[in-house]
Amino acid sequence: MRYVYPCPLRWADMDSFGHVNNVVYLRYLEQARVEWMFMTAKEAGIKEFSLGTVVARHEIEYKRPLVYRSDPVRVETWVTRIGNASFTVAYEVKDDEFVYAIAETVLVPYDLAAERPRRVTIEERDYLKPYLAAALPKSRHR
Amino acid sequence: MRYVYPCPLRWADMDSFGHVNNVVYLRYLEQARVEWMFMTAKEAGIKEFSLGTVVARHEIEYKRPLVYRSDPVRVETWVTRIGNASFTVAYEVKDDEFVYAIAETVLVPYDLAAERPRRVTIEERDYLKPYLAAALPKSRHR
Amino acid sequence: MRYVYPCPLRWADMDSFGHVNNVVYLRYLEQARVEWMFMTAKEAGIKEFSLGTVVARHEIEYKRPLVYRSDPVRVETWVTRIGNASFTVAYEVKDDEFVYAIAETVLVPYDLAAERPRRVTIEERDYLKPYLAAALPKSRHR
Amino acid sequence: MRYVYPCPLRWADMDSFGHVNNVVYLRYLEQARVEWMFMTAKEAGIKEFSLGTVVARHEIEYKRPLVYRSDPVRVETWVTRIGNASFTVAYEVKDDEFVYAIAETVLVPYDLAAERPRRVTIEERDYLKPYLAAALPKSRHR
Repeated sequence: MRYVYPCPLRWADMDSFGHVNNVVYLRYLEQARVEWMFMTAKEAGIKEFSLGTVVARHEIEYKRPLVYRSDPVRVETWVTRIGNASFTVAYEVKDDEFVYAIAETVLVPYDLAAERPRRVTIEERDYLKPYLAAALPKSRHR
Repeated sequence: MRYVYPCPLRWADMDSFGHVNNVVYLRYLEQARVEWMFMTAKEAGIKEFSLGTVVARHEIEYKRPLVYRSDPVRVETWVTRIGNASFTVAYEVKDDEFVYAIAETVLVPYDLAAERPRRVTIEERDYLKPYLAAALPKSRHR
Repeated sequence: MRYVYPCPLRWADMDSFGHVNNVVYLRYLEQARVEWMFMTAKEAGIKEFSLGTVVARHEIEYKRPLVYRSDPVRVETWVTRIGNASFTVAYEVKDDEFVYAIAETVLVPYDLAAERPRRVTIEERDYLKPYLAAALPKSRHR
Repeated sequence: MRYVYPCPLRWADMDSFGHVNNVVYLRYLEQARVEWMFMTAKEAGIKEFSLGTVVARHEIEYKRPLVYRSDPVRVETWVTRIGNASFTVAYEVKDDEFVYAIAETVLVPYDLAAERPRRVTIEERDYLKPYLAAALPKSRHR
């Protein structure tokens, strides 16, 4: 299963080359994560994520330039790994015609009060499991 | 050789968790690339980079949280691969005490007029060569 | 008549005090103007605005803090003055319960090729007229 | 007396028109305020400002377009009014040749714990007083 977030663009997301700036794509991924892990998970009774989850790592491949438009792009998010103290999510940024970017993020649940990483709880694991699926093949472009 | 960019932070780089947001680190890397490839290279007579260079891929690992401070962090940049139609740069975001993040970007020279990738020119290759060095070991954190 | 733009927030719009940062409200106003003057006006055959309109002045009053939420706020925009070489738009940022900010912007049509201000065209004037209404009273808070 | 903040630009401050976006100037003003009221005032023993100060109002006039450059612009800041529960600061964004913008902000000291405005303390007043000077004449451009 994938979490599908219709992500609104902003005109200011474009840089002086007239394309959505590469850094802003990460903002779209964050926005999808926030809706999925903070807002939606909270409705499902899982509030730990929003209390502290740290990004340990990003990997992103750009496929196609994006220009501002009124219609959102779709950020599709799923889980590719659930470990004891971290998990990995994958994304596609796309619309009905094109894929604009694919990406992967390693997330670490964090205890803000104690200021240190903590284990993934059973409730969190149960929330993530239905989204578990294979990672996208990475391009050889390195 | 490494290109060293003293990168000023902005208070607004922090998000509501009170740390520099993970997305903003990519802004720091961009800022280092702009100074190195647009401004410094232009002084050396290489202006093609600033006419069009596309980010094909980013990889970034976060090591330590950053909080706003008046003193800049150092973004150190070097080259880990020069191909025919792309090259890879590596970075460390650090100060005298800590490394905050390490990252890698694949860059593709781009002909904006013709709207397609182009080959790395001999002049560009010569500009990049002195910065060629080994990549950092990546963590097993995936 | 007012142009009503449902403006999506982003989690990253909040600063380290946990509120939408005051600077970001101006981004919301820009986004409303872009949809109204670039996208909607273009559909009505008015494309000059998007070719160049310069912000000469902003005035904004903050009424109430905003916190990230999935539901958009409403940016309502109208025109308070149409001059020969500039015009003024007013805005309310609100939802069904509260007004979060009121603002005013002086805009100057600009000829990007000639690099200088130009007069408001008759077509632009006709596009703006139905939106003409009184300005909001400004607070004495100065 | 004016507080002078050398404000570094970022390449990403430019929008797709190739100029520093009008919204970003407010970021420069914020950055000057942070250095002046959070960092410098704190060294002088005044820490209340950084505990909570709310922007009640901005007014900004744009004089000249800015393009990215490695050299900072200067944000000069002073005080034009000290009231019981608010004060007003004025700014010029400039370099040795040009003034790019002038602006004014009404600031309200805020008690974050009690969640309400508070009075300007005597220590704050003493810190602000040496910066007190006349406001800039506003243009008739409305």
